[in-house]
Amino acid sequence: MKPAAHRLDLDNYPLHVTVPSRFRDLDTLGHINNVAIGSFYEEGRARLNRECFPLEMRKRHSMRMLIADVHIAYLREAHYPGEIIVGAGIGNIGNTSYRIDLALFQNGQCVGVCETVLVNTDGKATAAIPDEGREALEAVRVRGG
Amino acid sequence: MKPAAHRLDLDNYPLHVTVPSRFRDLDTLGHINNVAIGSFYEEGRARLNRECFPLEMRKRHSMRMLIADVHIAYLREAHYPGEIIVGAGIGNIGNTSYRIDLALFQNGQCVGVCETVLVNTDGKATAAIPDEGREALEAVRVRGG
Amino acid sequence: MKPAAHRLDLDNYPLHVTVPSRFRDLDTLGHINNVAIGSFYEEGRARLNRECFPLEMRKRHSMRMLIADVHIAYLREAHYPGEIIVGAGIGNIGNTSYRIDLALFQNGQCVGVCETVLVNTDGKATAAIPDEGREALEAVRVRGG
Amino acid sequence: MKPAAHRLDLDNYPLHVTVPSRFRDLDTLGHINNVAIGSFYEEGRARLNRECFPLEMRKRHSMRMLIADVHIAYLREAHYPGEIIVGAGIGNIGNTSYRIDLALFQNGQCVGVCETVLVNTDGKATAAIPDEGREALEAVRVRGG
Repeated sequence: MKPAAHRLDLDNYPLHVTVPSRFRDLDTLGHINNVAIGSFYEEGRARLNRECFPLEMRKRHSMRMLIADVHIAYLREAHYPGEIIVGAGIGNIGNTSYRIDLALFQNGQCVGVCETVLVNTDGKATAAIPDEGREALEAVRVRGG
Repeated sequence: MKPAAHRLDLDNYPLHVTVPSRFRDLDTLGHINNVAIGSFYEEGRARLNRECFPLEMRKRHSMRMLIADVHIAYLREAHYPGEIIVGAGIGNIGNTSYRIDLALFQNGQCVGVCETVLVNTDGKATAAIPDEGREALEAVRVRGG
Repeated sequence: MKPAAHRLDLDNYPLHVTVPSRFRDLDTLGHINNVAIGSFYEEGRARLNRECFPLEMRKRHSMRMLIADVHIAYLREAHYPGEIIVGAGIGNIGNTSYRIDLALFQNGQCVGVCETVLVNTDGKATAAIPDEGREALEAVRVRGG
Repeated sequence: MKPAAHRLDLDNYPLHVTVPSRFRDLDTLGHINNVAIGSFYEEGRARLNRECFPLEMRKRHSMRMLIADVHIAYLREAHYPGEIIVGAGIGNIGNTSYRIDLALFQNGQCVGVCETVLVNTDGKATAAIPDEGREALEAVRVRGG
């Protein structure tokens, strides 16, 4: 995955989450482990999903979002100690699914990007994203795409 | 915590769980991370709790076990790749609480021991361990103590 | 990522690693967490890299493999307790990079697939994969592709 | 372990580290997992060791600190999302070993305490803590003990 230029600029992401790296994120190579990097993106997804789909909305529509696809590009090594800023926004909105676009920044540099496709379900089968949820997703699209 | 001699012998533990170490368990020092070691002990506790308190028993008595205290002694470094055998058994049984004694073995050597105190609750307050649960705990006491 | 049919059959992967799931892999939804799934794929990659590039070969050629890209498709929920079998093999071999194709199987069903692009470096810049390494990669290609 | 009263007051710890909880810290019970709690204490230890034993001091004296013993009391459940403040200080200083006392605070309440015994080694055998390191440890003792 070769990220488009606008994906490398934190200003283009409507949501920012600051996550300090932890010693436990390191691996034997001395930088933040590739799998541990996944938990930084997870923080960005969790924040976006909480903001767009509050608990009451999820109950009202029996919404349960499942991850279908995660694609990560590793651009630079990330370090400990130090904070990572996760940028998150919406890249695409379908009928039953949507794509969250994310990027990680450390010391002003983009260290990686991620695309995650999530599918809405009613707990059993895929289900259309309700209109109020769709509006919330529209409001946090990544800019410049 | 200076472990008693009988705690260093796998044969004294009635339950054994084999857990391969994972690359993600390593830290920057090149051995299995001290926090990651905790997840090996957790596997021993989970196995013991499943065997002594089957789901139906938990529902019948509204049991919910909470960990109150964990004490770990690190005796040797543990390595990857390689399997760790977790030995688990009961060290003590009280009215509302019990102690699980655990040890980790790699390549025939004890690399660490752990004592965990768990408290039984009904979801709100501490509660007496039901008799059928107490009998199950008695049956898996660590030997030689 | 829509996986090709041959990617869903464990028999097509030359390397198999059995990894028991751990309680710590679970998340609040009660199935194995999406990020934790990444550590199963990591076990498959680590095994393949150890087999194809023994430590002496890495030293001889100053090889250091870095992950550039990870793409995961989540096909089914994975559960605890229970073993996961990781299938691993080579999907593509370039001049300085190669792609490891992986899949996870639980109870005979494919629960997910992953493609990982790794780049060989000499610690500073990308470097051609040495011939003996290339031969080792060729020997473990995924079948049926 | 029944913690002394002064251990439950953040003001008594000379070092504070703020660590946001992560979704990956949760387990199937919906609160922060007991093993994951260990990584919060690890952040407090890492901070204290970095401050007391800068890299140059470690090299000068061939210092390598190993954890010998970790004792954790779980006092309350910890939650996500939300920050945890780790309080860290020194509880005891021996000839070759020292004890780091830690506590976790969330929403103004102490959710747990931890004592960790570390042993200084020269990479092979235990070694006396050098005087300059001992002075640094003295400067960050937990107050009120």
